Amino acid sequence: MKALIFQGSGKKALEERPKPTIAEPTDAIVKVSCISACGKCEYCRKGMYSHCVNGGWILGNTIDGTQAEYVRIPYADTSLYRVADGADEEALVMLSDILPTGFECGVLNGKIQPGATVAIVGAGPVGLAALLTAQFFSPSDIIMIDVDDNRLTLSKRFGATATVSSSDGKAAEAIMRLTGGRGVDTAIEAVGIPATFGLCENIVAPGGTIANIGVHGSKVDLHLERLWSHNITITTRLVDTFSTPMLLKTVQSRKINPKLLITHHFPLDRILEAYDTFGKAASRQALKVIIET
Amino acid sequence: MKALIFQGSGKKALEERPKPTIAEPTDAIVKVSCISACGKCEYCRKGMYSHCVNGGWILGNTIDGTQAEYVRIPYADTSLYRVADGADEEALVMLSDILPTGFECGVLNGKIQPGATVAIVGAGPVGLAALLTAQFFSPSDIIMIDVDDNRLTLSKRFGATATVSSSDGKAAEAIMRLTGGRGVDTAIEAVGIPATFGLCENIVAPGGTIANIGVHGSKVDLHLERLWSHNITITTRLVDTFSTPMLLKTVQSRKINPKLLITHHFPLDRILEAYDTFGKAASRQALKVIIET
Repeated sequence: MKALIFQGSGKKALEERPKPTIAEPTDAIVKVSCISACGKCEYCRKGMYSHCVNGGWILGNTIDGTQAEYVRIPYADTSLYRVADGADEEALVMLSDILPTGFECGVLNGKIQPGATVAIVGAGPVGLAALLTAQFFSPSDIIMIDVDDNRLTLSKRFGATATVSSSDGKAAEAIMRLTGGRGVDTAIEAVGIPATFGLCENIVAPGGTIANIGVHGSKVDLHLERLWSHNITITTRLVDTFSTPMLLKTVQSRKINPKLLITHHFPLDRILEAYDTFGKAASRQALKVIIET
Repeated sequence: MKALIFQGSGKKALEERPKPTIAEPTDAIVKVSCISACGKCEYCRKGMYSHCVNGGWILGNTIDGTQAEYVRIPYADTSLYRVADGADEEALVMLSDILPTGFECGVLNGKIQPGATVAIVGAGPVGLAALLTAQFFSPSDIIMIDVDDNRLTLSKRFGATATVSSSDGKAAEAIMRLTGGRGVDTAIEAVGIPATFGLCENIVAPGGTIANIGVHGSKVDLHLERLWSHNITITTRLVDTFSTPMLLKTVQSRKINPKLLITHHFPLDRILEAYDTFGKAASRQALKVIIET
């Protein structure tokens, strides 16, 4: 059986392999998300499982991430899902975190509609997950922005209608040209630094939405002296994985193919090489790395 | 007949009294909003009349406000409303700007729900208009925050369930105490300076909304290093007055009494005194001033 999460913060777990304390399922592969929620508290009742007062974002945050054959998952009955016979296990590993993050924090919060113009700032795994799941709602334009030309090329394969390199500091001008001076209906921030949030502020059209996904380490400038009158919406969200059952169905029905995100495979006993590859993502052209048991 | 707007930016119009170029209505009082929109452009079709490419926020912005018996209103057929026989004219003057502003930018954008906890930062006319119209949706708590004790006292008459003076710089702590450490579901910013926007950031609960009404003159700090994971929404809006027909009905049916906002009356030939009173709002305890013809 497999219970795989590959998260950067989980390295320490290698030395302290957790012992299994839940029964091994006999007929299912267990998919683990980084959220473990009680399902009963005030926040769980609102679908804000990440904010569960009894748990929430645990794996890779308050406890280590997991790279083990067997793991103990708090509130397992509310955060594990049985996987259908014949399902592509590797594709489903992408559902543990990045697909619901891109979808819930970027696509749903960004209120993407048929015919809309969307910009996604950051073509890393989460930005690409937003690109994949944005297509559920048939926007007419999805512009990907990044400094890495390799990732921009990849974005075209994922469904981007245009790409813009932000390496010259003129991405906003390029996007305004691409949108006939209008700006975009939805700007998804998938990096987490002041410059990329600022870019979203510069390209969002009146009436539009900035959906923040990025994990920010510092405050940003919010230019209300300009935006106060622009009827815009800014959203933040830590993924709650409430959409996991729906995403499972879209993978099963081949509406999306999250295997596109997997660039490397390593066996469990070469996991340190895997971390090294993930740590040098740009030079190794790495997106997501699968550990095989 | 009356066509009254009392706006600070309209003083110049006194010397250049506009001549009437629309026919005087014979059976109606004309209520004028500061928005004059074509009703046909891309933004008008979205209800964003303020952003109308042929007009939008005109009166008191790109042309002067009005203090005349007769005025020329661009696109009059899309921005004037007939007033029912027997209606209270003075109450309806409040509908020209402040009631739809408080309602559309604060209450609707703030997604106020039955049972919700609301804080309104700023108890000026627009903040008080938000307080009046917030009660359409039956929140359980509405906390008014201001530096002016007179306005806080007044807020109680308008329906505030609690008031907090922000003059000591400890309003956030007081609001957290009042909400059992939770914060508020909706924080309405009705001042327009960095400190009051910052207060809203400090008191909004996870999953909550900051609805900005304030006209800001400078950028503000957005603390995404804390808020990125809090599932919050921030909205901005310039009033579009799409809600005016609905608000007319609520005044007619006495659901709200906007006359509470009127503190002073002056005849048209004493309008400079009226401006003086409005300019010294705090010491004169002025909210809105009616000019009588």
